[in-house]
Amino acid sequence: MTDTAEIVRRYWALANARDWAGFGALLAPDVVYEVPQTRERVRGRDPYVEFNRTWPGAWHVEITELIAQPDRAVSVTAFHVDGQTMTGICFFECRDGLITRLTDWWPGNYDPPPRQTSVIERW
Amino acid sequence: MTDTAEIVRRYWALANARDWAGFGALLAPDVVYEVPQTRERVRGRDPYVEFNRTWPGAWHVEITELIAQPDRAVSVTAFHVDGQTMTGICFFECRDGLITRLTDWWPGNYDPPPRQTSVIERW
Repeated sequence: MTDTAEIVRRYWALANARDWAGFGALLAPDVVYEVPQTRERVRGRDPYVEFNRTWPGAWHVEITELIAQPDRAVSVTAFHVDGQTMTGICFFECRDGLITRLTDWWPGNYDPPPRQTSVIERW
Repeated sequence: MTDTAEIVRRYWALANARDWAGFGALLAPDVVYEVPQTRERVRGRDPYVEFNRTWPGAWHVEITELIAQPDRAVSVTAFHVDGQTMTGICFFECRDGLITRLTDWWPGNYDPPPRQTSVIERW
């Protein structure tokens, strides 16, 4: 059985190490990467390695949550760059030990909407 | 073994049905709900049922992705309300067949940042 949790851990470790050959070896040739919030898409292993290789800044990714089943997984990560930290939520689909699809979310902070109840606290 | 995928499916089905007694029966008494983007928190079963019961609008939730392992799960949902659709990403932690923690994300659309490569297409 493919261990998708291990694939995701290697994916981020190789990205942090800037080991782009190893990183690319985790990807299916026809991998598709999508960011629904910006309607951006990258198709193919080499373009997707290039997309990551050219990401600016001295970034480092820390896994804070990882849920996996045999064909799918999701990681929540703290993406540290230039003294700032963003949260990334990336869904992975795998087949035959390779990543075939990534759907990437970057939820930003926002002001809470009006609420109909007082049960909510802030931190 | 607790089937967390089934718990999550029932959670959304009971929410859609406004069956708040059934919905509450899925929750641990000390359940904690958090929205990291707004720094909002609700503690406890009854307050969390109240939070959901008072959510305005004729909303309906459709599961579009569900990943589960024995103690944790995540759902991606299309939240339909007033002719609009938002994406929700909710992480669930379970213990003894009850939901003990929910971490809820609501990623909004944003303009893509400048990219260092031309491998990206838009849709």
